[in-house]
Amino acid sequence: MSQEIFEQRLNEAADRVTVALDALLPRAEGPEAQLNSAMRYAALGPGKRLRPFLTMELGNLINADERGLLRAACAVECIHAYSLIHDDLPCMDDDDMRRGRPTVHKAYDEATAVLAGDALQAMAFEILAHPDTHGRGAIRARLVEKLARASGAAGMVGGQMIDILGERETLDISVVTRMHRMKTGALINFAAEAAVALKDVEDHIRRALEGFAHDLGLAYQITDDLLDATGDEEEAGKAVGKDAGQGKATFVTILGVEGARDRSRHLAAQAKEHLEPFGSRANLLMDAVDFVLARRA
Amino acid sequence: MSQEIFEQRLNEAADRVTVALDALLPRAEGPEAQLNSAMRYAALGPGKRLRPFLTMELGNLINADERGLLRAACAVECIHAYSLIHDDLPCMDDDDMRRGRPTVHKAYDEATAVLAGDALQAMAFEILAHPDTHGRGAIRARLVEKLARASGAAGMVGGQMIDILGERETLDISVVTRMHRMKTGALINFAAEAAVALKDVEDHIRRALEGFAHDLGLAYQITDDLLDATGDEEEAGKAVGKDAGQGKATFVTILGVEGARDRSRHLAAQAKEHLEPFGSRANLLMDAVDFVLARRA
Repeated sequence: MSQEIFEQRLNEAADRVTVALDALLPRAEGPEAQLNSAMRYAALGPGKRLRPFLTMELGNLINADERGLLRAACAVECIHAYSLIHDDLPCMDDDDMRRGRPTVHKAYDEATAVLAGDALQAMAFEILAHPDTHGRGAIRARLVEKLARASGAAGMVGGQMIDILGERETLDISVVTRMHRMKTGALINFAAEAAVALKDVEDHIRRALEGFAHDLGLAYQITDDLLDATGDEEEAGKAVGKDAGQGKATFVTILGVEGARDRSRHLAAQAKEHLEPFGSRANLLMDAVDFVLARRA
Repeated sequence: MSQEIFEQRLNEAADRVTVALDALLPRAEGPEAQLNSAMRYAALGPGKRLRPFLTMELGNLINADERGLLRAACAVECIHAYSLIHDDLPCMDDDDMRRGRPTVHKAYDEATAVLAGDALQAMAFEILAHPDTHGRGAIRARLVEKLARASGAAGMVGGQMIDILGERETLDISVVTRMHRMKTGALINFAAEAAVALKDVEDHIRRALEGFAHDLGLAYQITDDLLDATGDEEEAGKAVGKDAGQGKATFVTILGVEGARDRSRHLAAQAKEHLEPFGSRANLLMDAVDFVLARRA
């Protein structure tokens, strides 16, 4: 499949998630309207919706229920959106632009940004726990538990903590890898965990999906490091060159540009191997790997 | 029961929750240790643990399972602790002291405070969703849904947004009441919702518990406003007189000190009436109402 057709499919999936999120998010009404408005600004704005796409496609691969997948996709996007709001805060990465628009604390203010992130996090778990997600409560509870672990101290938030501490001290490759597995990998892993939570599959199928998500997650983050080191600010829609400016250890500072490219290519090939048993049904996910490596933003 | 004996019982409950939370929270280990340390500082530090106490006592009143109650109590305390961390941030209420100790962003730094709050929120839902909370997944999912609603945009976070906006414009009594129902009331309501989620009861019992929590929650917040207007900084363990200094509308600025006292006494009487059908078994909760009104911190 050409990369162009892939992007069209990715955009279609993104639109479905945006429409579903629009219906799930609270209207900007009442005395707290500013909060709801900021939540909508962050969650409905431009974005690739890669995590939702992976959740839905990995689920389709094993014929998991579509409605449950769409709701899990919305939940993971709420978590992702909240994490970007908080990461952009002045006390964190201090970014003014995100996806070519002012960040939430610039478009609104810092207090509203903190609160909008907090409320989006709660929203993610509310979506998963709601009976519409799946008829069986045990499956809804498992989705909540998996997303809470992926996004909490042992996952995304813990990874962000290591990332920030890395500005003060030099991290070695094992800690940088751990950091990325937690910061970005855990949420991409959730895409696979959600798919197999929504559909009983044999162990080797589960391992294939989780292996794919694991390798893709790390490849994604290495590409992020490469973009920051070599990318174009206008194309990226955000500031680049920040890692080096802050003296942060990244895959690029540790492995060099070529070493990092090699590593990401190796991981990409490995990710694809996990899906070989699915044959041509996995073509779209194979293309997703190429897309992640080739992306410019 | 004397107020002294009540406080002893409250402290015993607080100790049980602190011990349980200590076991549930991640150890301060690994490269992200600073995050886990800040989570523990916030969640295990001094505090009345009123929300956990109410959760457990309302549950005991209807013979709900003790382990489930304790875990629900831990979850609501995680949410409460995270909300205090974020409320204290410089961009929010900008408080340096809390319960007589430096606030998290003072003891650590702002970035760590944002992240510790985020991770404690995820932790709350992880605790509820875990199979240890209840054998039935549907009940775990319901607990998650109730806590997510109570703490999100339609509850605690939405109330905090209104509170902040109230510093810029004068709110009338209906908006101040709505703000408090959301900001403080929703989480106290969760104590009753958790109890009845963990134990099937008749509708009139459920309404009695929820009515009690509703009235107590508002009485609690009015007392808070009174403490800020008339309290002693050393006793309160935090800054007082901030509301008036910021020109904020509170029950005290709208109703006056005596009017606010009358309102809280009226709500307290109403809260107790809800529990009359339970006779002497509700004595401890009746005492909790008096405690809330008489508290100095």
